Amino acid sequence: MLDEKIMKEIYELVEDTRDIIVCSIGEQGYPNAKAMFKVAHDGLKTFYFSTNVSSNRTQQFMKNSKACLYFFESKKINGLMLIGDMEILLDNETKQNFWQDGWEMYYPLGATDPDYCIAKFTSISGNYYNSLKKYIFRVE
Amino acid sequence: MLDEKIMKEIYELVEDTRDIIVCSIGEQGYPNAKAMFKVAHDGLKTFYFSTNVSSNRTQQFMKNSKACLYFFESKKINGLMLIGDMEILLDNETKQNFWQDGWEMYYPLGATDPDYCIAKFTSISGNYYNSLKKYIFRVE
Repeated sequence: MLDEKIMKEIYELVEDTRDIIVCSIGEQGYPNAKAMFKVAHDGLKTFYFSTNVSSNRTQQFMKNSKACLYFFESKKINGLMLIGDMEILLDNETKQNFWQDGWEMYYPLGATDPDYCIAKFTSISGNYYNSLKKYIFRVE
Repeated sequence: MLDEKIMKEIYELVEDTRDIIVCSIGEQGYPNAKAMFKVAHDGLKTFYFSTNVSSNRTQQFMKNSKACLYFFESKKINGLMLIGDMEILLDNETKQNFWQDGWEMYYPLGATDPDYCIAKFTSISGNYYNSLKKYIFRVE
């Protein structure tokens, strides 16, 4: 496993990143990328996003769960890639758990809006780049 | 095609973005992402990057050319995704054309270093997001 100093850097990068680049497999097998706000996360293992069921991204993940998350800080030239799978959660209990005030802007019908869902990412492995050094690790 | 105001926004985003998120298809079909500096570009159609032949990213593109570029500006909440193919150029003429002073740091043997190559991205289509609006277009 990585040493404590590097792990601290990685956790800080994850905490500081509001806009995570979320990658999926799109039409004809081309990779796709889009910035998404993280709603909640559990260390490096699990990340939750809110999104529209009707969006291209959600439809892609329903067909192919393969995903990666990318965290990037331009000033420090460091980046973290997490490889894993994205699951689309449609049940009202999950949707209500994550619901936040103000989201009516995106989902007018509220926490049970059929076009609102939670995308849950579970990490398999990580690649961390710091200047010219590279660290590859499993996420347990 | 898109109106002039939107095209101007897109061109400005491309010019202002130093670190482009480059996505590839990696092991077992998972999408991969990494920030790369653009070396040169021709509008929205062609982008050139310098990279190591031995890098994971280059090896992935040699097996599967499917790629996307992502340009993102956090402050304005706008993003541009370009879908296309990445070609790895290994000939010395191309490598010398793009060579820049100071790159010995990355490629100690200079412009003909066998571990230095140019990755050429050619766009097929674009998705531009501006606030909650979305614009999809072909890149001719």
